[in-house]
Amino acid sequence: MKEFGCKVEEIPAGELNGCGRRTRFDSPTGHMFEIFAEKEQTGKWGLTKTNPEAWPRGLEGMKVTRFDHCLLYGIDIDGTLELFRDVLGFELAEQVVDPEGNRAAQFLTVSMKAHDIAFIKHDEDGKFHHASFFLDTWQDVLQAADIISMEDISLDIGPTRHGLTHGQTIYFFDPSGNRNEVFCGGNYHYPDHEPLTWKAEDLGKAIFYHDRQLNERFLGVLT
Amino acid sequence: MKEFGCKVEEIPAGELNGCGRRTRFDSPTGHMFEIFAEKEQTGKWGLTKTNPEAWPRGLEGMKVTRFDHCLLYGIDIDGTLELFRDVLGFELAEQVVDPEGNRAAQFLTVSMKAHDIAFIKHDEDGKFHHASFFLDTWQDVLQAADIISMEDISLDIGPTRHGLTHGQTIYFFDPSGNRNEVFCGGNYHYPDHEPLTWKAEDLGKAIFYHDRQLNERFLGVLT
Amino acid sequence: MKEFGCKVEEIPAGELNGCGRRTRFDSPTGHMFEIFAEKEQTGKWGLTKTNPEAWPRGLEGMKVTRFDHCLLYGIDIDGTLELFRDVLGFELAEQVVDPEGNRAAQFLTVSMKAHDIAFIKHDEDGKFHHASFFLDTWQDVLQAADIISMEDISLDIGPTRHGLTHGQTIYFFDPSGNRNEVFCGGNYHYPDHEPLTWKAEDLGKAIFYHDRQLNERFLGVLT
Amino acid sequence: MKEFGCKVEEIPAGELNGCGRRTRFDSPTGHMFEIFAEKEQTGKWGLTKTNPEAWPRGLEGMKVTRFDHCLLYGIDIDGTLELFRDVLGFELAEQVVDPEGNRAAQFLTVSMKAHDIAFIKHDEDGKFHHASFFLDTWQDVLQAADIISMEDISLDIGPTRHGLTHGQTIYFFDPSGNRNEVFCGGNYHYPDHEPLTWKAEDLGKAIFYHDRQLNERFLGVLT
Repeated sequence: MKEFGCKVEEIPAGELNGCGRRTRFDSPTGHMFEIFAEKEQTGKWGLTKTNPEAWPRGLEGMKVTRFDHCLLYGIDIDGTLELFRDVLGFELAEQVVDPEGNRAAQFLTVSMKAHDIAFIKHDEDGKFHHASFFLDTWQDVLQAADIISMEDISLDIGPTRHGLTHGQTIYFFDPSGNRNEVFCGGNYHYPDHEPLTWKAEDLGKAIFYHDRQLNERFLGVLT
Repeated sequence: MKEFGCKVEEIPAGELNGCGRRTRFDSPTGHMFEIFAEKEQTGKWGLTKTNPEAWPRGLEGMKVTRFDHCLLYGIDIDGTLELFRDVLGFELAEQVVDPEGNRAAQFLTVSMKAHDIAFIKHDEDGKFHHASFFLDTWQDVLQAADIISMEDISLDIGPTRHGLTHGQTIYFFDPSGNRNEVFCGGNYHYPDHEPLTWKAEDLGKAIFYHDRQLNERFLGVLT
Repeated sequence: MKEFGCKVEEIPAGELNGCGRRTRFDSPTGHMFEIFAEKEQTGKWGLTKTNPEAWPRGLEGMKVTRFDHCLLYGIDIDGTLELFRDVLGFELAEQVVDPEGNRAAQFLTVSMKAHDIAFIKHDEDGKFHHASFFLDTWQDVLQAADIISMEDISLDIGPTRHGLTHGQTIYFFDPSGNRNEVFCGGNYHYPDHEPLTWKAEDLGKAIFYHDRQLNERFLGVLT
Repeated sequence: MKEFGCKVEEIPAGELNGCGRRTRFDSPTGHMFEIFAEKEQTGKWGLTKTNPEAWPRGLEGMKVTRFDHCLLYGIDIDGTLELFRDVLGFELAEQVVDPEGNRAAQFLTVSMKAHDIAFIKHDEDGKFHHASFFLDTWQDVLQAADIISMEDISLDIGPTRHGLTHGQTIYFFDPSGNRNEVFCGGNYHYPDHEPLTWKAEDLGKAIFYHDRQLNERFLGVLT
């Protein structure tokens, strides 16, 4: 990463509870990342490691299974793709490309998920769009939508489906004003798959597959 | 019905293929209705009457199970309620009531469905808002939404849930410009149940439970 | 009912908390029934009558929506059909008929549900097979199955689907040894529908649509 | 692999249509495997690479998304674990361990799926138990179960859930007598996760989470 040009910093084990040594680095889009190899294991979804039941008793709220990905905004997304692909081993799973062949959005994976992290080209660096959590089913997306209404939470958009990744989704704002997504489903990726491409002129359908148009609220990034 | 003041007309059996004698009558809201007792039976969902399979082979498109209800607009919805309740035996299952105690919307049932027909108060008589078809599952609502997008059909709103009836729904326009709904779920009604009431000042949530606001397109009635 | 030959008994209002005057009567199959017109209304599923939310907060366990039906066993099911149809106004929605044309099972409805009560021919009178509770979705049937396993409850059979009624179902025994069903879906019935018929020689598929054979445990009635 | 002791054979590109050069090798459990780096890309699920719709039009039957894994039986599963883990880079995601600490079953992953291949200890080498295909939803598992019944296909067991992997599943035999599984859901795996363990004495629940007992038909391996 140093060779690539990142500022790199080491953070000793234990500085964060239950977390091993971390390496912090910045990206061409102006975001700070940290990676680590060791983390306290509390069991998938809080289940025991021996004879785990199907799901934890006493779940409340939206019942998210795990953190899934986040979407970040910045100027030099080509540079950040290089960093994540050539230095960190991610693959380009899906992208939005404009008629001149420039990438306007990139969805990167280091697993078989449609994205572990995503970036959208934007004229300001270091911006955060949303954090996303995984639900098991489309029925859970409905339940999340109901909870958003029952608890009078600020809805962004949904329930709907994305064209990109084909995930089934709903977005909302937490009390601090951060945008959050809960979603289920979505494409899978294998290492020999070429990237899926959406044309920038079809961006409405690429983002919101059912409405086929963007809403202005969703386009806003958080400061 | 004549005593109530309806114009009543008899239509002989066979005038409509496969349909017995019909009685046509008008309502205070200026709509024409027809009732009949005999109709050619083609099997529930097209299945045989003996050893019926779980669902018909070769279903295409949105796979609706059956017609469910329609929503009509007109001025004198109190009069139409009297007609449907006192003459035809429907019950008032759900309603919207304004702060002065006037009904702005009424959902009538003659079964245990949340509505077999519904009326909304409107300053013009004889208007049609939408016809609605039943789907088995919320998964089918997603599939309908996908088909709407894949076939480039004009979407009105959805997938979402109603507050009134709690049905899970999507609305779209057919090529003739008629609004259609496909939906699943929804409240049940038993004869001893008092009507469920939504306050007119919460109409947004009553209609679109997740967005909690009306969109102008949905408010338009068809001419 | 007296004319039909039933023993009829009146039970005054209030003898059962929150319940109006009841009429108790027996049936040709040796079962005792009670009907009433007035019952304390606690709201569908416990929800308020004004601006009801989509579902009650704090639901636990299998999250049943309501009681649905029960299945009873006895000798003279023809007599009980006459009582329920000609005296009480039920309709025969579905049935099992043997090659000689005798009914071996009958599913009766007084709504548009596939059954509000069902009877199976059996050489002993007054027997109870199961009580059944309604779930909203097939996902809820899976959740019920998981709970049965997590709580080490005695499973009878399921998750599966019935041929009769086409409901999606699971059966289990409560600590007192009573058989219970939770299920979702199932056929609808309109008053002009002829009964659906399953042949007695296909009883396996009629009862358990996927396994296509009966298990002995399910055949046992409770004493 | 040669160093590990495998018999290794090269098969030139094109010997199999649309497939690049393959390397064939055997395993301690007596199975033959082939790996390749290049395969003709026909689009995920048959969808185009540009502006892909949510799902392919005209799907028929069980609508499987992709091949998922297979389960094999043999004697030296410890040796095969070494081969797959130390030579090929798989990880041990889930296992069954007997009271003496011996592994009776191992589920191996090279992705974040609960298993890409699985092995069960058995006193004969080179046996095949089943091939498994992925469905999107539990609703699709029900549909598969319905199709199995409607087409009079030989059912093995299901719909149900596994304890191991927590997948939701149904098994059936094709006309050649091969056992097939279609399933949805299931645990995820990240590289720093320790294996999940089921105790051999709870094998019934580990395999069939709802029935909590094995059926003899399922135990049979194919010759």
